[in-house]
Amino acid sequence: MSAFSEIQSLVPAIRSGSIRAIARGLSWIEAGGDRAEALSERLYQYTKGSSILGITGAPGAGKSTLVAALIKEIRSRSFTVGVLAVDPSSPFSGGAILGDRIRMNDVSGDEGVFIRSMATRGVLGGLCRAAADGVDLLCASGKDFVIVETVGVGQDEIDIMRLAHTTVVVSVPGLGDEVQALKAGIIEIADIHVVNKADREGASQTIAELQSLLAMKTAGRNGWNPPVLASIATEGVGMSQLLDLIEGHRMFLRTSGEMDRQLRIIAEARVLNIAQHLLAQRFGDSKTGSEGFLRKQIERVVVRELSPHRCAREVFDRTQYKTEQETRLSSNV
Amino acid sequence: MSAFSEIQSLVPAIRSGSIRAIARGLSWIEAGGDRAEALSERLYQYTKGSSILGITGAPGAGKSTLVAALIKEIRSRSFTVGVLAVDPSSPFSGGAILGDRIRMNDVSGDEGVFIRSMATRGVLGGLCRAAADGVDLLCASGKDFVIVETVGVGQDEIDIMRLAHTTVVVSVPGLGDEVQALKAGIIEIADIHVVNKADREGASQTIAELQSLLAMKTAGRNGWNPPVLASIATEGVGMSQLLDLIEGHRMFLRTSGEMDRQLRIIAEARVLNIAQHLLAQRFGDSKTGSEGFLRKQIERVVVRELSPHRCAREVFDRTQYKTEQETRLSSNV
Repeated sequence: MSAFSEIQSLVPAIRSGSIRAIARGLSWIEAGGDRAEALSERLYQYTKGSSILGITGAPGAGKSTLVAALIKEIRSRSFTVGVLAVDPSSPFSGGAILGDRIRMNDVSGDEGVFIRSMATRGVLGGLCRAAADGVDLLCASGKDFVIVETVGVGQDEIDIMRLAHTTVVVSVPGLGDEVQALKAGIIEIADIHVVNKADREGASQTIAELQSLLAMKTAGRNGWNPPVLASIATEGVGMSQLLDLIEGHRMFLRTSGEMDRQLRIIAEARVLNIAQHLLAQRFGDSKTGSEGFLRKQIERVVVRELSPHRCAREVFDRTQYKTEQETRLSSNV
Repeated sequence: MSAFSEIQSLVPAIRSGSIRAIARGLSWIEAGGDRAEALSERLYQYTKGSSILGITGAPGAGKSTLVAALIKEIRSRSFTVGVLAVDPSSPFSGGAILGDRIRMNDVSGDEGVFIRSMATRGVLGGLCRAAADGVDLLCASGKDFVIVETVGVGQDEIDIMRLAHTTVVVSVPGLGDEVQALKAGIIEIADIHVVNKADREGASQTIAELQSLLAMKTAGRNGWNPPVLASIATEGVGMSQLLDLIEGHRMFLRTSGEMDRQLRIIAEARVLNIAQHLLAQRFGDSKTGSEGFLRKQIERVVVRELSPHRCAREVFDRTQYKTEQETRLSSNV
């Protein structure tokens, strides 16, 4: 069967929520390439309607347990949910560290839940591209909630969190300073803070610290003040409140007009990311191509005749915008 | 004073090793923009000669202490050293978490040491660009060793580590599984493994695990088998051996021809990164420009008339290579 006719049958199967079809589509997306792009292209029009949640936090904060508990809460309200656990730490081995197998056991046999890990694509921004398409696929499968989970430590994870309508950042009392500091960068993308393992010593102090940190940052918040919630995910404590807060944030996004602004930012970031990827491809082609211009210039950089900056400008000066007339827009179909 | 004449005087001052000039140049590079590029452009030709070390590892592995101990060893052999501690975790606050102040106290007043933190530039690949220019600056300042240190958890850090000739990955016994797993991705870029805090329980097990992992990966190593070294950085234990191993690896790179291959890979990655940044700039310009083509297309993505993939292709199809004749190469100066 050709890839084209496979896509023809896969798209409706994904839309009907078939677990096999969803798994297959995500495998394509993870593998990347033309087939993945063609599938994502076809699915994009059906992505509307899901509530997209980002869940992140320092290693050891109990994100996986919290996601499992939140899934139960979502299911108890008769909503469906898809989870993409994104692991940016293994660009070479392709392994996934998140405890998805454990969680899978909790919910196996439930057709209303789909959980999947996705590992780094090994190229700049590649994981974020694949994660964005994976989230789209889960949205197109008709899930009420789509959760994207990362270990919140780097720029990649922050970019991935930006795909979400509502971002939940999970902290935990009593982690070492350096580990805690890792979440400094993601504090500012949090719409909701959860202090998990709230029965541990130091929980109230962690909550107080977060709240005083947030009190300094009310400006620029566009009217939403991120609440701080205590939870004990292993016992399901706080999950009902968490889902209420998530629904409340969604309501806020819709009534304030923030949702439109956010969707625009997401779209711009995705388009730029893909365009940069296309540049990298062209770069790769020209590097190995017969012309050898770029290859010669790289050699000049190696021997320090030419700086990387100037070489990049030369490469880039060879590209230019066509005028609108010259460009036959492929979108008019 | 104009930026141009400032650069005129800054370049020789940096080359003479002036701490003030180095600090100033790094501030420019961290701030980014035309001034940073002009400075980096001028310094690039003088970057030869330094041994560039990358040091990374999971949070809590004791990297900062190890760097401090390694600096002492380097100084005891009368070499000079510059350190760039790169912190990818704070794209918004711009803060640095690495313990550079503590280390600074240990070596303050020593003109043969320069230590500086650098925080995320907040844009895709921006930190890596700035780190690359920062390393160049320290090389141009005549340091025998240039150390670039990151918390090894994401793609950014791995990209930064690729700037180094020799990469040292620091592990530690007894960290939690999830935290340890974070380094899975960076194991494969390690030229030398250090198991720090080797007086802790479980050290020999950690060393054995690493060694069995490495034994499976001898293929594709280009002739270098990464050694595993035990250290107790707080007491300086293992530092002399570590520096010997670093020198040994450098010797290997030179005699095997691997150094040339590595320099070419570094140059290519840097040029592509900068070219992608230029694309992002053009993207930003056209987004706000009077034409509004891109702005209109983004709106179509938001309402799901157009997929991000197709939109990116349209944007990118508007760029094309000029032929070599058309391009007046700005490098011929």
